[in-house]
Amino acid sequence: MQAEPQSFDRVLSSMCTEPHPVARDAAERFLATNPGDPGTYPAVAALEDDAIAMLGEIADLDEPAGYVASGGTEANIQAVRIARERCEADTPNVVMPESGHFSFRKAADVLGVELRIVPTDDDYRVDLDAVRACVDEETALVIGVAGTTEYGRVDPIPELGSIAREVDAMFHVDAAWGGFVLPFTDYEWNFAHAPVDTMAIDPHKMGQAAVPAGGLLVRSAGLLDELAVSTPYLESTSQATLTGTRSGAGVASAVAAMEELWPAGYRSQYVRSRNNAEWLADALEKRGYEVVDPALPLVAADVPRSTFDALRARGWRISRTGSGELRIVCMPHVSREMLASFIGDLDRLEVRASVPIAGDD
Amino acid sequence: MQAEPQSFDRVLSSMCTEPHPVARDAAERFLATNPGDPGTYPAVAALEDDAIAMLGEIADLDEPAGYVASGGTEANIQAVRIARERCEADTPNVVMPESGHFSFRKAADVLGVELRIVPTDDDYRVDLDAVRACVDEETALVIGVAGTTEYGRVDPIPELGSIAREVDAMFHVDAAWGGFVLPFTDYEWNFAHAPVDTMAIDPHKMGQAAVPAGGLLVRSAGLLDELAVSTPYLESTSQATLTGTRSGAGVASAVAAMEELWPAGYRSQYVRSRNNAEWLADALEKRGYEVVDPALPLVAADVPRSTFDALRARGWRISRTGSGELRIVCMPHVSREMLASFIGDLDRLEVRASVPIAGDD
Repeated sequence: MQAEPQSFDRVLSSMCTEPHPVARDAAERFLATNPGDPGTYPAVAALEDDAIAMLGEIADLDEPAGYVASGGTEANIQAVRIARERCEADTPNVVMPESGHFSFRKAADVLGVELRIVPTDDDYRVDLDAVRACVDEETALVIGVAGTTEYGRVDPIPELGSIAREVDAMFHVDAAWGGFVLPFTDYEWNFAHAPVDTMAIDPHKMGQAAVPAGGLLVRSAGLLDELAVSTPYLESTSQATLTGTRSGAGVASAVAAMEELWPAGYRSQYVRSRNNAEWLADALEKRGYEVVDPALPLVAADVPRSTFDALRARGWRISRTGSGELRIVCMPHVSREMLASFIGDLDRLEVRASVPIAGDD
Repeated sequence: MQAEPQSFDRVLSSMCTEPHPVARDAAERFLATNPGDPGTYPAVAALEDDAIAMLGEIADLDEPAGYVASGGTEANIQAVRIARERCEADTPNVVMPESGHFSFRKAADVLGVELRIVPTDDDYRVDLDAVRACVDEETALVIGVAGTTEYGRVDPIPELGSIAREVDAMFHVDAAWGGFVLPFTDYEWNFAHAPVDTMAIDPHKMGQAAVPAGGLLVRSAGLLDELAVSTPYLESTSQATLTGTRSGAGVASAVAAMEELWPAGYRSQYVRSRNNAEWLADALEKRGYEVVDPALPLVAADVPRSTFDALRARGWRISRTGSGELRIVCMPHVSREMLASFIGDLDRLEVRASVPIAGDD
């Protein structure tokens, strides 16, 4: 094995991060376990119960049920699957804002349901009137996003829940990225705020656990029955997960991170990330770029494509929104020094672009 | 974190195992990487190419294509999904032997295809006449198993492939467990032996990689297009996997294990596992149990339920087939000493059962 993994010192667009040291340690200890086979690996199965209990506490869910998934994509697919199973319509549909994650397109394709995409408003949050006009008696699920992938926006969750209930649809909140910072904000996003049925909330994003540790929460354990298949040859009797063998490292590291950081550690990390995002937004604005105000610690700005490409060529791991804006996620590994170094590179590039010097490379 | 993971010294029924030391080392080094985001994590993305190249070599696939999945369940679901997308029938069906893994039931449920289950013969291999009677013009996929979960049997793969081709169906081989031992046997099971379109072959089982590292191989890269969804905000443009974020630890450890062990290390491990299985089968037969002959290193025997329960109570991690037989998988961590200790416990239980002594607990 010659290859080296990337360091995180130029990773600015990932929604994953360096695991917290206690999370890394737990992942290494539980590397050779499989929570998908609880009869053989009871210690990690017990840890998964702890993980769900803590996720429930974070998301204000009274009697937590769910499981540690491979990530937000699996949790989102499973939420759509539960809704499809519960729905009695012949051709069930799912309604989501255009800001929804692409995993819902995957879910619709895999599960054979119609995906109805509604526009967002000027602030990149779902247009409620458009949702009202879109739902009907065949709507199985309404989706709200609490921390969108591109702009970090939080949809009006209680209002979306009401619309879902009016047509007897289920309601899913995708808080895969936002779930570990939203408790420290004034947003309404969780099970206590609205009639949420299912939620994606990922320890391996802002929760600082090791990949793969996503979370699917359901309001009542009975919803998991919609997913269960029987399991001959395992001592457990049924399996509600989408994958079979699962990562014990992810489960153990999620528990370790949450025990270490909830709530004080996550709160201070949120404050640090928010301050970094505001500093970065300010720095970009001062340089004349149009910046999308960071509602959560995620900054988007209209940096030209040529500049973007030059920054990537210098090793910065950055990505773009569907509209082409530079997008930077202020994850725990993103320090002020990294951002200052990034802005320094940006300044050097812009000087060259505006004042070309003959012979300069 | 107080909990300790299980040790492997009494784990006899898992199809996962202790990762090889080089695999564990690679997993720990690549713990904080995500091959689902190759634009941000290029080193692990390059390793995934290596993994697919090596899996192709093991499975005799000329121009290997595929990806490292979370495990056999994901690979099996994706194979059914490819076949569903390729099939033009209104109500596609999938034909598999009753020895097929339960993940195909999950796949059929998720994907909305009809699953037709055909019986096996006296040696637990698929009944070919039953398959011929079952396929029709709406058959999207025929499934063969190369190393069944319960009895370690290898279906007649070339014959199944011919039946699939006769009805223009695709052909999938589930070698999730068997793929890393079959190269050292006389069985016909791989891409060179038959018109196999897709295959599940898991490094984290007999390949001695760390969980989660499954493998999906496809005969031509174009088959992956059936799975692709576009990926805004990632620098890569599409994603063919079922999950989104994936385990870099699994990918890196799969490459490390295969580089270390293919082919000599896997061959010697196979010989050791086979000898252990034969020793165990012999020991059980001598004690009067009916034993299913181990075709691959997996032993099933008709130990009574009360004895089974008593062995589990002594900490042995064993499981049962659907018919109730004790089932032991001779994975790399299963040593002759473990098996001798297990037989010793069995003898002590049977003495007590046949010669009850008053006052004995």
